[in-house]
Amino acid sequence: MSNYLPKPEDKFTFGLWTVGSTGRDPFGSPVRDALSPVELVHLLAEVGAYGVNFHDNDLVPIDATPAERDQIVKSFKQALAETGLVVPMATTNLFGDPIFKDGAFTANDPKVRAYALQKTMRAMDLGAEFGAQIYVFWGGREGVEIDACRQPTDGYKRFREALNYLCEYNMAQNYGFKFALEAKPNEPRGDIYLPTTGAMLGFIATLDHPEMVGVNPEMAHEHMAGLNFVHAVAQAWDAGKLFHIDLNDQNYARFDQDWRFGMQSIKQSFFLVKFLEDVRYSGSRHFDAHAFRTEDYQGVRDFARGCMRTYGILKEKAQRFNQDPEIQALLAEINAEDPQMNAFLGKFSPEKAAALKAHTFDRPAISSRGLHYEALDQLVVDLLLGVR
Amino acid sequence: MSNYLPKPEDKFTFGLWTVGSTGRDPFGSPVRDALSPVELVHLLAEVGAYGVNFHDNDLVPIDATPAERDQIVKSFKQALAETGLVVPMATTNLFGDPIFKDGAFTANDPKVRAYALQKTMRAMDLGAEFGAQIYVFWGGREGVEIDACRQPTDGYKRFREALNYLCEYNMAQNYGFKFALEAKPNEPRGDIYLPTTGAMLGFIATLDHPEMVGVNPEMAHEHMAGLNFVHAVAQAWDAGKLFHIDLNDQNYARFDQDWRFGMQSIKQSFFLVKFLEDVRYSGSRHFDAHAFRTEDYQGVRDFARGCMRTYGILKEKAQRFNQDPEIQALLAEINAEDPQMNAFLGKFSPEKAAALKAHTFDRPAISSRGLHYEALDQLVVDLLLGVR
Amino acid sequence: MSNYLPKPEDKFTFGLWTVGSTGRDPFGSPVRDALSPVELVHLLAEVGAYGVNFHDNDLVPIDATPAERDQIVKSFKQALAETGLVVPMATTNLFGDPIFKDGAFTANDPKVRAYALQKTMRAMDLGAEFGAQIYVFWGGREGVEIDACRQPTDGYKRFREALNYLCEYNMAQNYGFKFALEAKPNEPRGDIYLPTTGAMLGFIATLDHPEMVGVNPEMAHEHMAGLNFVHAVAQAWDAGKLFHIDLNDQNYARFDQDWRFGMQSIKQSFFLVKFLEDVRYSGSRHFDAHAFRTEDYQGVRDFARGCMRTYGILKEKAQRFNQDPEIQALLAEINAEDPQMNAFLGKFSPEKAAALKAHTFDRPAISSRGLHYEALDQLVVDLLLGVR
Amino acid sequence: MSNYLPKPEDKFTFGLWTVGSTGRDPFGSPVRDALSPVELVHLLAEVGAYGVNFHDNDLVPIDATPAERDQIVKSFKQALAETGLVVPMATTNLFGDPIFKDGAFTANDPKVRAYALQKTMRAMDLGAEFGAQIYVFWGGREGVEIDACRQPTDGYKRFREALNYLCEYNMAQNYGFKFALEAKPNEPRGDIYLPTTGAMLGFIATLDHPEMVGVNPEMAHEHMAGLNFVHAVAQAWDAGKLFHIDLNDQNYARFDQDWRFGMQSIKQSFFLVKFLEDVRYSGSRHFDAHAFRTEDYQGVRDFARGCMRTYGILKEKAQRFNQDPEIQALLAEINAEDPQMNAFLGKFSPEKAAALKAHTFDRPAISSRGLHYEALDQLVVDLLLGVR
Repeated sequence: MSNYLPKPEDKFTFGLWTVGSTGRDPFGSPVRDALSPVELVHLLAEVGAYGVNFHDNDLVPIDATPAERDQIVKSFKQALAETGLVVPMATTNLFGDPIFKDGAFTANDPKVRAYALQKTMRAMDLGAEFGAQIYVFWGGREGVEIDACRQPTDGYKRFREALNYLCEYNMAQNYGFKFALEAKPNEPRGDIYLPTTGAMLGFIATLDHPEMVGVNPEMAHEHMAGLNFVHAVAQAWDAGKLFHIDLNDQNYARFDQDWRFGMQSIKQSFFLVKFLEDVRYSGSRHFDAHAFRTEDYQGVRDFARGCMRTYGILKEKAQRFNQDPEIQALLAEINAEDPQMNAFLGKFSPEKAAALKAHTFDRPAISSRGLHYEALDQLVVDLLLGVR
Repeated sequence: MSNYLPKPEDKFTFGLWTVGSTGRDPFGSPVRDALSPVELVHLLAEVGAYGVNFHDNDLVPIDATPAERDQIVKSFKQALAETGLVVPMATTNLFGDPIFKDGAFTANDPKVRAYALQKTMRAMDLGAEFGAQIYVFWGGREGVEIDACRQPTDGYKRFREALNYLCEYNMAQNYGFKFALEAKPNEPRGDIYLPTTGAMLGFIATLDHPEMVGVNPEMAHEHMAGLNFVHAVAQAWDAGKLFHIDLNDQNYARFDQDWRFGMQSIKQSFFLVKFLEDVRYSGSRHFDAHAFRTEDYQGVRDFARGCMRTYGILKEKAQRFNQDPEIQALLAEINAEDPQMNAFLGKFSPEKAAALKAHTFDRPAISSRGLHYEALDQLVVDLLLGVR
Repeated sequence: MSNYLPKPEDKFTFGLWTVGSTGRDPFGSPVRDALSPVELVHLLAEVGAYGVNFHDNDLVPIDATPAERDQIVKSFKQALAETGLVVPMATTNLFGDPIFKDGAFTANDPKVRAYALQKTMRAMDLGAEFGAQIYVFWGGREGVEIDACRQPTDGYKRFREALNYLCEYNMAQNYGFKFALEAKPNEPRGDIYLPTTGAMLGFIATLDHPEMVGVNPEMAHEHMAGLNFVHAVAQAWDAGKLFHIDLNDQNYARFDQDWRFGMQSIKQSFFLVKFLEDVRYSGSRHFDAHAFRTEDYQGVRDFARGCMRTYGILKEKAQRFNQDPEIQALLAEINAEDPQMNAFLGKFSPEKAAALKAHTFDRPAISSRGLHYEALDQLVVDLLLGVR
Repeated sequence: MSNYLPKPEDKFTFGLWTVGSTGRDPFGSPVRDALSPVELVHLLAEVGAYGVNFHDNDLVPIDATPAERDQIVKSFKQALAETGLVVPMATTNLFGDPIFKDGAFTANDPKVRAYALQKTMRAMDLGAEFGAQIYVFWGGREGVEIDACRQPTDGYKRFREALNYLCEYNMAQNYGFKFALEAKPNEPRGDIYLPTTGAMLGFIATLDHPEMVGVNPEMAHEHMAGLNFVHAVAQAWDAGKLFHIDLNDQNYARFDQDWRFGMQSIKQSFFLVKFLEDVRYSGSRHFDAHAFRTEDYQGVRDFARGCMRTYGILKEKAQRFNQDPEIQALLAEINAEDPQMNAFLGKFSPEKAAALKAHTFDRPAISSRGLHYEALDQLVVDLLLGVR
């Protein structure tokens, strides 16, 4: 049995805002003193992370002078060099400052929309300086409390215009970023536009450069809408759009909880890890979560180690699933091909259709077959609980 | 003030299964005797509907002989002729028979997948015979209780193969159907694949004939996932994919309630009607709902009349919204253009980007502007409640 | 038609924290400068409120010296005197300070539990000084993210011990407070103990002084669990425990949105107002909500006025419901007594039971009666929309 | 490692309706032929169940003649004798027949209310004949779609009158039943009265014979409202009201899924089993669930065995939790008493209050202590996954 310690090939990454969370929430003030980005990089190195991601203002305060910015960048680069951590992803904070109270790219005030573009270009410059290859867009305020304030189609038009603009900027600057859109159904806005990974995939098809744009599905965000996360991830993968992923945990139909990966939704987390490993997803495993508010920085380390450890345990269980003779025998039976049906299925032809329409199916016989899903699922539960 | 009686140009349609529901539910047996399709058409005509839609087996029982089928078709056509009702949409029942217990197009058993194709081709033939122009796909069983039984990507692959096949069949037969995919997050399956309108839009982009395929968003289904329905409809419209719509009502994060349109979510229903009317949506307003189980057939008539009446009332309110000077003045202020910003926004150019990056924004000044959304929304509430 | 301006007899109250909210949320910083308690009282007077409620620290900072406290109390009393506002309710902030990160009365650390008692006694002293008659307990942190940390029964035991203690303190000081327990299912904790108004009612029955303790149901909190709020309020009323009420609005199964009363759940708000007026509830109508983050203080005034205005509109509609001949005729029919059944119903006696067991019911006849609920509800929708 | 086979002392019971479900759902017809009650008893014996529970009409059809009833009772008694199964609980079906379309005890029609009483008395007679000691009340239709049809307080009054009546009947007949009220938030009604276990506990306090009445919490039902089930069970236990329990599983904020126990909510199921075992709950462990619709009767057996097996596995893990030195050391530290605080806590006295009010707490010192909940919870996850 492995010790489940993180390895570089796992590509485990954390945002500065995750281990750097001070625990402030809507009903309470911070419980931990803020650490500097440099301190956070060292903390992440200590627990074994591979990389670190940031919003522009996680690293450089929104009011920093150019000189301050340069000094921060320099010291952060040095911390990366000392620790070996990489920066695979960067993103823009388009939600924290009051200027974004009505959204950023979709805000009604054109000044806000223009400022959001400016801020994103500058943040892309910053990300590129650190070698980030993925650029995430989470439009935390791109939504409404009241639908009277704008037609949703105006929101979509503005958001598309902004993404098209920034794709061009990406090309003009030769940054080579892949854009990853992150959906969330609500909070902090009453409703956020394009609320699910699926909606983002639909939206990408309307862009000028769809090939440059994919998604960053987040487990907690799909769970907020009570949706099956591995189904969302699989749809993104099926469409060639799984550019990044945010791992964490949370109950269904709740506020944004951002818990340690694997803490609550054990079965769902298992099928997610299994999917990522089965399809050989090669991107970052990014943990977008934070420690409970009950914790000090020792607890923050426990949190970060726990995310990676549970991923490792579930990965080992996925391998066992794939090698378990009883499970595999059931799956082979359940998914067996039927040579006679092959003549009917696959690509359409008029002849095939005619033959299929003429065929007689024995409905009762087909219906009465038991599918053994209870048995199969119990084997999975046994596997998860470590009793097989 | 109008009497809100339905008019043909409203294109109000009902499924046979809606007014024909006998009130059976998971915990109780039917409370109303079944009416024949012919009787249902007359009931719909009596209440003023424009059209009637059906699943194949709403009209023709799954075990009907060809002779029985022909007789049923003949008498149904006669009822349509007598009443003037049209059949704008048809669809397939791929969920009621036990053969579909593990899905239809995505089932693990190839026999089931082949049978589902056969059944759909025959149902398309039936729909075409009645002049239907929209063909709806609701994959009520295309999902899982346990993710162990198949990779979700296999589900998507199978579903895509089926749709590609049926698009070809549509072309080969010159039926001219537009396909409308209907999403639902869960129930009767634990999770249904492609659970939201957004997910369907993303999926359409992966098909062989995306131009032939759009969506049929259903209000109750998006509400089950707690999502803003008008946002989903607007995304479909924005993508040119709003081929059909299912109007009803339901609380968020609940079982499938399929209530009378406008009964519960008054504000959401208003913005939906307003959107459909503002963009001049020209398709059917299809009510996919049924009367409470407390009702007899008089109550079924009340239910059907209520759906249409509330639509009419909300349509009138939408017109008032668009003509209300106070509301329009607030909207004009809130959405005002800014000539200076026009130089920065719109299509990208390197020069524009350079100018924008060099611009200085007065963040505190922009942030401090009050947006009057509370006032605007109170005007909407006043309008809805009939006190302005 | 009334102008719906608030009157003193409406007993409309607001918490200092409601109109005083600066708009900070988990993803963004304040958008409005903080006003002093005195300024807030004047704002509330300007919009027509009857009273103002507060947590201890809304008025007196947690770190204030006794001299500072006295000065604050003095100036606040003066503001009340100038404006005529009263303080019907007071409460304790047991969630904001980091010391409460694991709860207050239920925290694992006995020091925290003792401090919570001390803080509450002092806050009761403060509330009594302002003549408050209702003392609210909202245990915002009395819960867990992980059930490993304590048995829930230990949580209940500690909470009961604290309430029993404070009831005694209330008696010892002759404060005459009625305690009102406020439930919330989650947020900021993963799960909060005694998550619904119903659970609080169950808990009260286990206290030493149940007669002193009732509930403070909050609309948004029950909606977070997707529950029917008027049912919860009616249960409290039925049990003689409706000591206070928190009016606001919010979608089901969402984060705590705390919207303007009546903004979203129009129908639910109507039945709530109708219930409170029908039973002649004589307590405060307290609005526990805040303005959107898009607003300046003009918007805060709009928000506060809107809460009261919508209550007034719905109150008028409730009167119309009670006077509408068509509605009342339907209700009379639906709820008709049956003299023959009176012999069977009511208090048990062996003879009555024997007679009832011997009676033959015509099940099909009873079952087939249509109940006209679709018609009745459409009348309600018409009434709400102002078209009857 | 145990083989986790069920033992009589586990008191595992199933309802006839659970293994007897034919798989009918709102969208599909039965997938399994119905078995007789006698066959179901033998099936339950085969899988190792201890007991079997029933609604009156699970055993005796609603239209059975007295002679048919007697024959059914006789053959069922014989099956029990042959297998050794017992009947610890009985209940009434007050939801299946159309007569209950508007509720039973709370229906507006007095004939329905009287019939519901009659039916329940007869069903109590039947249950008593089989030695049942617990009598469950699940008011599946006691609710509304529209609140216009009655005041909720009328619903509560009627429900209370019925329970008071039946308590008296219970005493008059010397049946010795303990009544267990089962809550459910919604489905099949739009909202069901007294929607949570907590609400039932509150309601019991208003009855004439509260000591005779407790609760039957159901995991799936609390999960439908997104509530923490072990908290609800613990509240019932704390109040001395945990008379029965319904074990199953289901996602939060969803339709009633009634899945195999432990299938989905692994962590919640663990803490539930741990609680029941820690407090030495001695009642039935009743599984109120059914096999997936994909299954034949072999799958039904797999389902029933899986419920019991997973309970057994989790019970063993609960023992390990209680014996794990690292977990127990953390818990001891987290829950440590503080002798100095003992002087302040516990029962109130004026002297104690005075001393406590005079005490100075070092808030920053208390606040800064890390509570190790991340570490503790990771140990639980490790334990659940079988890697410690």
